[in-house]
Amino acid sequence: MIVFGVDPGLTRCGVGVIEAGASRRLSFIHVDVIRTDPKDPQDIRLLQQWQGLSRKIEEFSPDVVSIERVFAQHNVNTVLGTAQVAGLAMVAAAERSIPTAVHTPSEVKLAITGNGTAEKIQVERMVARILGLNVLPKPADAADALAQAITHALRPSGALQGGEREQHLTMAQRQWAQQLQKTKMSKGALRGM
Amino acid sequence: MIVFGVDPGLTRCGVGVIEAGASRRLSFIHVDVIRTDPKDPQDIRLLQQWQGLSRKIEEFSPDVVSIERVFAQHNVNTVLGTAQVAGLAMVAAAERSIPTAVHTPSEVKLAITGNGTAEKIQVERMVARILGLNVLPKPADAADALAQAITHALRPSGALQGGEREQHLTMAQRQWAQQLQKTKMSKGALRGM
Repeated sequence: MIVFGVDPGLTRCGVGVIEAGASRRLSFIHVDVIRTDPKDPQDIRLLQQWQGLSRKIEEFSPDVVSIERVFAQHNVNTVLGTAQVAGLAMVAAAERSIPTAVHTPSEVKLAITGNGTAEKIQVERMVARILGLNVLPKPADAADALAQAITHALRPSGALQGGEREQHLTMAQRQWAQQLQKTKMSKGALRGM
Repeated sequence: MIVFGVDPGLTRCGVGVIEAGASRRLSFIHVDVIRTDPKDPQDIRLLQQWQGLSRKIEEFSPDVVSIERVFAQHNVNTVLGTAQVAGLAMVAAAERSIPTAVHTPSEVKLAITGNGTAEKIQVERMVARILGLNVLPKPADAADALAQAITHALRPSGALQGGEREQHLTMAQRQWAQQLQKTKMSKGALRGM
């Protein structure tokens, strides 16, 4: 299964593509950041993000596009542009009948490190380790996009289907599954922006 | 000049198309509301808005697409979806090299009624009067999309180019022009979301 992770942003949109093979083996395929110039008008910048995301989704033909969930309480100056790019990623996927998913930043931290409030550097180190990269993925948007893809690939909802696979859960995944059950995050809540 | 107005929204997106002829004569072309079902997933709803907006922009081939500016301080449950649909309208226009503009709700009220804090019903009545409609455009999203298009067509920046046309300004337009100068709204500020 090819998972296309997106860390949405108008100035920098991170894209990370991985393959989830048998026994939850994850391998690195691609990472990049689509950039736009803050001096350009909003419509041109959104068009550039749209074209960049569409081209990459076309190129890697993923089985799922997983996008970092945008929260309204973040910096109001950037949140609208971030939400707009997240929306473009959803439409670029949906136009090609590719399913989409969303995972929150704290879900990602929990899935990758076992700690929902982990520091960025801890997440970056674990991303590099999980994917067998010799260098940390940079900038942060690139690492976050890979972390988003890994989170989706490791999501307990998949692992917990059929008890047989449950034994493959790492300690972090177990904690994550428990946390998700505790907070009663429904599939609907995960999907909604 | 054909102006395509958009009142963005995920559940209901208003679209209003008018023609601005010689001597600022405005005529009605089209009004509609693109609807999606709140029970459907976000990606499907965004795709439906994208397809609906793209089809209508293709059909009416406007000279400009004018979109209601989205503010972050509105209801946080709906503002992200609204911003996403506004972004889709921008990209649908920009993909066809059609310029976009944004006007705030209070700019629209001021342009249409001469009062930046006018009631919805006053705006609806003036929209019907300006366009010579026998009935009030309904629902509110439809009226707001037409009001957005009218506001763009009547914008003082156009009217004030060359003193000769300035005499055609109505009292409301004069007040609006003065207000805009007072608040020093730059062209850049109007464009930004």
